[in-house]
Amino acid sequence: MFTLLGTDASSRARLGRLTTARGVIDTPAFMPVGTQASVKALDPRELLEMGTQILLGNTYHLSIRPGMDVIRAAGGLHAFMNWKGPILTDSGGFQVFSLAKIRKIHPHGVEFRSHLDGSLFFLGPKEAMEIQSALGSDIAMVFDDCPPHPSTPGDLRSSLDRTVTWARECRAQPRAASQAVFGIVQGGNQPDLRESCAKALVAMDFDGYAIGGVSVGEPEAQMMAAVECTEPFLPMDKPRYAMGLGTPAQMVELVARGVDMFDCVLPTRVARNGTAFTAKGTVSIKAGFNKMDWLPIEEGCECYACLHFSRAYLRHLLNVGEILGLRMLSVHNSHMYLRVMAQIRAHLKAGTFAEFRRMYAATYIPTKRVLEMRASS
Amino acid sequence: MFTLLGTDASSRARLGRLTTARGVIDTPAFMPVGTQASVKALDPRELLEMGTQILLGNTYHLSIRPGMDVIRAAGGLHAFMNWKGPILTDSGGFQVFSLAKIRKIHPHGVEFRSHLDGSLFFLGPKEAMEIQSALGSDIAMVFDDCPPHPSTPGDLRSSLDRTVTWARECRAQPRAASQAVFGIVQGGNQPDLRESCAKALVAMDFDGYAIGGVSVGEPEAQMMAAVECTEPFLPMDKPRYAMGLGTPAQMVELVARGVDMFDCVLPTRVARNGTAFTAKGTVSIKAGFNKMDWLPIEEGCECYACLHFSRAYLRHLLNVGEILGLRMLSVHNSHMYLRVMAQIRAHLKAGTFAEFRRMYAATYIPTKRVLEMRASS
Repeated sequence: MFTLLGTDASSRARLGRLTTARGVIDTPAFMPVGTQASVKALDPRELLEMGTQILLGNTYHLSIRPGMDVIRAAGGLHAFMNWKGPILTDSGGFQVFSLAKIRKIHPHGVEFRSHLDGSLFFLGPKEAMEIQSALGSDIAMVFDDCPPHPSTPGDLRSSLDRTVTWARECRAQPRAASQAVFGIVQGGNQPDLRESCAKALVAMDFDGYAIGGVSVGEPEAQMMAAVECTEPFLPMDKPRYAMGLGTPAQMVELVARGVDMFDCVLPTRVARNGTAFTAKGTVSIKAGFNKMDWLPIEEGCECYACLHFSRAYLRHLLNVGEILGLRMLSVHNSHMYLRVMAQIRAHLKAGTFAEFRRMYAATYIPTKRVLEMRASS
Repeated sequence: MFTLLGTDASSRARLGRLTTARGVIDTPAFMPVGTQASVKALDPRELLEMGTQILLGNTYHLSIRPGMDVIRAAGGLHAFMNWKGPILTDSGGFQVFSLAKIRKIHPHGVEFRSHLDGSLFFLGPKEAMEIQSALGSDIAMVFDDCPPHPSTPGDLRSSLDRTVTWARECRAQPRAASQAVFGIVQGGNQPDLRESCAKALVAMDFDGYAIGGVSVGEPEAQMMAAVECTEPFLPMDKPRYAMGLGTPAQMVELVARGVDMFDCVLPTRVARNGTAFTAKGTVSIKAGFNKMDWLPIEEGCECYACLHFSRAYLRHLLNVGEILGLRMLSVHNSHMYLRVMAQIRAHLKAGTFAEFRRMYAATYIPTKRVLEMRASS
């Protein structure tokens, strides 16, 4: 399924190719997030035009609305949302532990109430795998216990035990045809827990490994440390996926730490806020200084928004609440995330990744407000 | 500018062609409404794909936001919004008399406060034509006094005098290069006032004539009567435009009464409400009965939404508040309005309009709620 095409001499970065029944994914890869069977504000044509090779869907959200009866009747998530390429589905673990309002943890899953109407649900390894099988995703994630930040060492330990037990139960469940399953490494900020979790999961032989328990509100240094102390225990011949991360600059740094796959709500979330990502950081398109700016969001960018509209026009649309404004910012931001990955792959191929990484760290200025918007979905 | 290509034997319907510097408009024509320099939720590509030949823009809205300094600096409305085809701009008369909060009518215009922040504006014949010249629209409308429904005969009379005086003042103003100007016939529900207004305007020799003071909350019969008592006094060799109308069935009936051009906010407005137009009337896509409906909004429809998505999927998107849902309903509804016009033109060409009109009246079931949503923008 995964082919390692090359490694970087200056870092732990890898160039690879992930092959699924529905298509090939070049890694490092960014996966636009379609939580509720739609990447916010975008249509499938726009996603294809910007080079999307794989989308994300979500067990928790989709099983609440529209409900699995609807998606089963549609013949799975691909048919339901008319996306013919690969889909990775999250297991719902993250949402159960972050979004759901009331819950009781049982040995084989979690009882919780929907954050929408309080209706009662039960999700465990068996249910999460059954749902993902019905969704028909190309890559399913194990159902994990994702502890909040910060957690006590004792809480982290018992959460970790559940994560490992549940991963084993997920591994034993039936899957959809040609569905891959990834394990999720937890362990918070404790290197020994991260190591033991990674080793336990690797022993179960998953198709890939995710680093979870990041993007939960922890500082950036701690997020990087969690990846650094996990990655050495993951096999070279399987893809690694950092869940819910990050800003463009963070993704470059995470690639340098051996990560192959990313998903993040930031591109579409900050778009709805009137903010655009550029190679130099974020910029408010809504701001007054764009009133008469006839340049595109980012010069040289080849996204649909930059090819057709000025900052001044987009600022106007955002200011008067026209949907086209946030549509176009969502196009630009998602395109920008995919472009960063394409640039990373080109530099890995050319052997110039070290230089690219240095340049990116020097020129991309992160915004505190944007960093704070990363957590939770 | 206008070529009358044929007339219908069974009614006053006409087949025509309107030629502007930026492109040809086949009539009868529907003009999607881009009040604030954007047709709500749609992008220019989608508008072209569905066969849009002319868009509407609005003097009142655009002069408040983004303001004429911005649009002048952009080089006009076409460049600002990146729409290369023809644009018709309304003069702002309708909005000043319906939206603006406080106003004082002077001999040469109206002093009013913006409905948004209360800032003071003055709009009269001179200002409206100056603004439309700067917008650079292909067709400008005269600045009229649009009385509310109902109005007393006395009010209608004095309003009409202003409308005629202001039309004369507009006619004398300088225009943008190759800009056409249409007069607007007012007169409420008084046939004698409609007749005298039409005759006065025709004597001024405009490039086209609009029937105004409709779509102001009057019952359908009265709207039809207003058109019937105006149309006989309009020249055959100039286009006639019924402002702010209507439902698909109403447009068919108005074509039969000699109208060539339409604009209406309904297609995108009801879309945002989760409602779709079909040849048989409106249908709520949000409704529970679509939960497992795998057919498109309308079978046989060739719009992007119907070619790609099921009612069940669109219902889900609308229910969870995903923007793609209202985007796709806006695509379908606008496409449907343009398709009705294409059908009308084909039947006029084939000499089968009478049959089409009978069929439409028999099968299109209007919705009271939708009729009520027509008025004002």
